[in-house]
Amino acid sequence: MATLEFWFEFASTYSYPAAARIEALTRGTGIAVVWKPFLLGPIFQRQGWNDSPFNLYPAQGHYMWRDLERICADLGIPLQRPSVFPRNSVLAARVACRFASEPWLPDFVRQVFHANFADDLDISNPRVIAMCLDRAGVPTAGKIESALTTQNKDALRAQTEQAEAIGIFGAPTFIVDQELFWGNDRLERAIAWCKSPRLGRVA
Amino acid sequence: MATLEFWFEFASTYSYPAAARIEALTRGTGIAVVWKPFLLGPIFQRQGWNDSPFNLYPAQGHYMWRDLERICADLGIPLQRPSVFPRNSVLAARVACRFASEPWLPDFVRQVFHANFADDLDISNPRVIAMCLDRAGVPTAGKIESALTTQNKDALRAQTEQAEAIGIFGAPTFIVDQELFWGNDRLERAIAWCKSPRLGRVA
Repeated sequence: MATLEFWFEFASTYSYPAAARIEALTRGTGIAVVWKPFLLGPIFQRQGWNDSPFNLYPAQGHYMWRDLERICADLGIPLQRPSVFPRNSVLAARVACRFASEPWLPDFVRQVFHANFADDLDISNPRVIAMCLDRAGVPTAGKIESALTTQNKDALRAQTEQAEAIGIFGAPTFIVDQELFWGNDRLERAIAWCKSPRLGRVA
Repeated sequence: MATLEFWFEFASTYSYPAAARIEALTRGTGIAVVWKPFLLGPIFQRQGWNDSPFNLYPAQGHYMWRDLERICADLGIPLQRPSVFPRNSVLAARVACRFASEPWLPDFVRQVFHANFADDLDISNPRVIAMCLDRAGVPTAGKIESALTTQNKDALRAQTEQAEAIGIFGAPTFIVDQELFWGNDRLERAIAWCKSPRLGRVA
């Protein structure tokens, strides 16, 4: 069975529609989606960026918000431009990293994206993350605490270092074997690669 | 009839597949394509970049070349990574600007992209541009000279300034009314916007 790694960042605008789409697009295909939270901040910093490129380069930022508005409208998912961008996503990423293989993880991830990009909530606030767990139908007791252990902090750091090591520079990124697809708009191509991993026209 | 402006740059990798696709995708739709050559160099410079971001940020560059390889293979168009990137595209852009409304312009544009990205030829060389005109079935006599007048140089400069003024920061960019779509992968959405210029699901 082909495996599709979905590398996402909770502060990343285009990760939001990707998280909304990926399960419906892969359902029934036999493709196993592996959810890989990571942090873009450290990767951007090593590129010399101390902020999102969408803030550093205003023309790109202006375009991105309009593009995202069109994409969300096409998908029928809500969008409210966050009053703070990019939001601190470390806590949310730690929780997602700690529980990455739980069956409820995709629901939780979508709730966090919804909180950030539809409800304009501060996803660095533990109460907001607890609300996202609750909305995903997950008992909250002990979850956040267990995401804040040194072991789990190290695990997220290692996952971010792995992202950079395999050539990831933005989010979302999809990886099939060692083939890298960057951007929400490459999700269909990544799925096609799962089915037919080669260059050239695909069915 | 809806008008689709196609802003392209001869040094831009993703402009190559866009130029290869745009006529087939718009044929029979009633959409009028307006070809708009411009230069990214001055726009990048004002963002603080003295080189292509694909050179400045190696992980992005490494990804882009592989992504372009996949895209060209899917389209069945040849790709040979240019030995010089980005190539100086000023001469080619001046010729395209001078003859933008000629019926042979799209053929000439494709020949220049082919020279750069399939033949690895120096498109700043007048002999290469003359060859591209010839391959497009255009009598070459006087063409390059008439692209080198002060008036035409000013026209390309003004077009580049216009690009920046309307929010263009990369190539290719498609504009429908004042709606901006950036990237080869947004061509289909731009065409859909011509047919139904609004947010939300499109037919």
